Amino acid sequence: MRYISDETIVALSTATGGAISVIRMTGPKAISIADTCFSKSIIDKEANTTTLGNIVDEEGRVIDNVVVALWKAPHSYTGEDVVEISCHGSKYIANEILNLFIRKGARMAEPGEYTKRAFLNGKMDLSQAEAVADLIASSNRASHQIAINQLRGHFSSHLQQLRSQLLKLTSLLELELDFSDHEELEFADRKELLSLAEEIDRHISRLSASFETGQAIKRGIPVAIVGKTNVGKSTLLNRLIKDERAIVSDIHGTTRDTIEDCIDINGITFRFIDTAGIRQSTDTIEQIGIERTFQAIEKAKIILWVIDSMPTKDEREDMEKRCQDRTLITVWNKIDLEEPRQDYNTSQYAISISAKNDININALEDIIYKSANIPELTENDVIVTSARHYNSLQYAHNGLQNVCDGLNTNLSGDLLAEDLRSVINSLSEITGNQITPQETLNNIFSHFCVGK
Amino acid sequence: MRYISDETIVALSTATGGAISVIRMTGPKAISIADTCFSKSIIDKEANTTTLGNIVDEEGRVIDNVVVALWKAPHSYTGEDVVEISCHGSKYIANEILNLFIRKGARMAEPGEYTKRAFLNGKMDLSQAEAVADLIASSNRASHQIAINQLRGHFSSHLQQLRSQLLKLTSLLELELDFSDHEELEFADRKELLSLAEEIDRHISRLSASFETGQAIKRGIPVAIVGKTNVGKSTLLNRLIKDERAIVSDIHGTTRDTIEDCIDINGITFRFIDTAGIRQSTDTIEQIGIERTFQAIEKAKIILWVIDSMPTKDEREDMEKRCQDRTLITVWNKIDLEEPRQDYNTSQYAISISAKNDININALEDIIYKSANIPELTENDVIVTSARHYNSLQYAHNGLQNVCDGLNTNLSGDLLAEDLRSVINSLSEITGNQITPQETLNNIFSHFCVGK
Repeated sequence: MRYISDETIVALSTATGGAISVIRMTGPKAISIADTCFSKSIIDKEANTTTLGNIVDEEGRVIDNVVVALWKAPHSYTGEDVVEISCHGSKYIANEILNLFIRKGARMAEPGEYTKRAFLNGKMDLSQAEAVADLIASSNRASHQIAINQLRGHFSSHLQQLRSQLLKLTSLLELELDFSDHEELEFADRKELLSLAEEIDRHISRLSASFETGQAIKRGIPVAIVGKTNVGKSTLLNRLIKDERAIVSDIHGTTRDTIEDCIDINGITFRFIDTAGIRQSTDTIEQIGIERTFQAIEKAKIILWVIDSMPTKDEREDMEKRCQDRTLITVWNKIDLEEPRQDYNTSQYAISISAKNDININALEDIIYKSANIPELTENDVIVTSARHYNSLQYAHNGLQNVCDGLNTNLSGDLLAEDLRSVINSLSEITGNQITPQETLNNIFSHFCVGK
Repeated sequence: MRYISDETIVALSTATGGAISVIRMTGPKAISIADTCFSKSIIDKEANTTTLGNIVDEEGRVIDNVVVALWKAPHSYTGEDVVEISCHGSKYIANEILNLFIRKGARMAEPGEYTKRAFLNGKMDLSQAEAVADLIASSNRASHQIAINQLRGHFSSHLQQLRSQLLKLTSLLELELDFSDHEELEFADRKELLSLAEEIDRHISRLSASFETGQAIKRGIPVAIVGKTNVGKSTLLNRLIKDERAIVSDIHGTTRDTIEDCIDINGITFRFIDTAGIRQSTDTIEQIGIERTFQAIEKAKIILWVIDSMPTKDEREDMEKRCQDRTLITVWNKIDLEEPRQDYNTSQYAISISAKNDININALEDIIYKSANIPELTENDVIVTSARHYNSLQYAHNGLQNVCDGLNTNLSGDLLAEDLRSVINSLSEITGNQITPQETLNNIFSHFCVGK
């Protein structure tokens, strides 16, 4: 598969405000356009080299002293001729160079258009292309690990393996179909086929099941801090987010729509739900009503229940009931004022702290991390983070269920083969191995930043 | 002159938030540190080449798929071995790579430290090094043109020429000194020497005089909008800044401390003085008192006097008196309501407009630009923008005045030669041709951004 575009595109690939900026141009005229605007000839320069010189406009005005890096088709990120200009980090200069290149025949790149071309030219499959956006948005160890594994093709190779197995299953069924009249021939036992189908389905289900972890890592794990007034909820929140706010606040990209109070524990992000109000007023819950607490619990995966005295049996039972299917951590605050009673804890996790005096906060963080139950990720783990991939895996799983049912009920081979083909198609959608609808591509790449 | 540092320094050279980030490392271990963290050997790679591969940490974890560009001493920006890593634009990734390199023996670069090394290694003189910061901060055509001319050494070559002339003058004087007993020898006529000194001084004075223009371009030209209440001052301001605010607001760096209302006309920035208050309330001047108007006029170079009816003779005389040594532009606003009287204008510049209906606003901008009297800059213009350079030029000028006086009053040659040496020293301070005090260097480079 080779995609040839006759359009040369250009964009600023770095954010403005740094010491240097990088302008990237790709397409059939990338090198010739850069060449006409450069003080040295780069037409005959070897690929993968850098050249220092001046960018000069049509009037001979020197715009900047820059480094030009060259890559030649097909050995480049996009698979096309690529030129990168490293210039001084002035927005004025970057705009002058961009405008010059556009006057010479390039056009501004759309978001993700470089990576889209890389995909169309077969430099990476679609799931790898999507990993590029995830990698740029990755803000901690876990989200980074998942994205880099996906970019390196670990997910793709799982899918490739599944695809081979499915093709094998299909061919076995089709063999049965073609020669079904020849009673003397022995075919694969339907039990063996069923066993193979079930094995494939278990693999798909495992991938599919990782989506919950993937979502938790990509979006951050929602945590609610609840409790009566004046138990120190906002003090605890401030203590937990301490300097973290400054660090996580400037993370933006595809993973989060709004900036929230987040902390990073062992490379996992924990998001505090609806805490802006709580931070502004310690009495928020009472002001807006108990309803808000319930809503926060609803949205959370982990609940920090802050107390500073022994709760009643009713209170405990009520809280435990509300936190069903969620992780409840009972946090006895203000141990500098009053030691907790030995029997205060009935929930799975409990700890006594002083938010004000910074006692046991690290231990609380360890409990929060542990209670999230996120597996330690390694180089080889494949975790599904994209809803698109998850949906395709679910379709594949449902299709395979039909195949298994059909094998059990002796459904005819041609019907089963049709189901199998739809399973293969579902998996192919993830990597884009089959023709991907333009709409799907647009949807994927429109979430990229410009310049990638 | 060659400066050898045993420290390898590293920094992120781009702003965070883009599609890609660039990490730059320079120093004796730059290549070996990068090599130990890279999936391919780059030790034996040729200079000025790029290599695609993975950055891998001590545990074998792949941090990112990156491009590594190499430069070898002395043929690099700093004159040392330099490695640039282009990675995906995630702050997490950039930090992981920086920390990895630091663990391997590099240290974080200080602001401007790359350019400081370039200067110390003789890759550029001090005025060129300072032009790098100006270039990064340049936000329009004029400030860019001055900075690029200075970076390309135009200012330096003027100074070099002056230095040669001064050395010639000194040697002529010293010749006179050495052979003053030999009456049979003919020496340069003191009149000729005086003529040469005066010529040098005129050149220095011309450079020195350009500082006013340089400051105007670098800082923007201050404009005050004054007038009675309800004449439409804030409407006019809003009309002038229109979409410009968004464009100029994100310019930051060394040239401006605060974000102001600015417009860019033909590549020159015009700053509106103290307009925040005026924009919030059209009655500000009356509220805070007439004193504020006078202060704005004091600080401005150009005054837009907005009127919507014929001012009295006293008013006109008062305004003209206050605007002495400044440019007064009389702006008759609301021509949609009332045409100006033929004789309303007594100032040098006048125009009738409607701010509300966008009538004659472009013409007003032309007048503002023209009244600023900034010469059209060309590739060859040298404009002094740095107070440090201006001070050195002033010292040189004063020294030459002494020399001229001494030549007129037949001062002895040895005293004159001493004065001349101090003039040469003053000029050398600009380019750093003589030993530059550490304090001066620190002061210059501390205003740079990190990563340059």
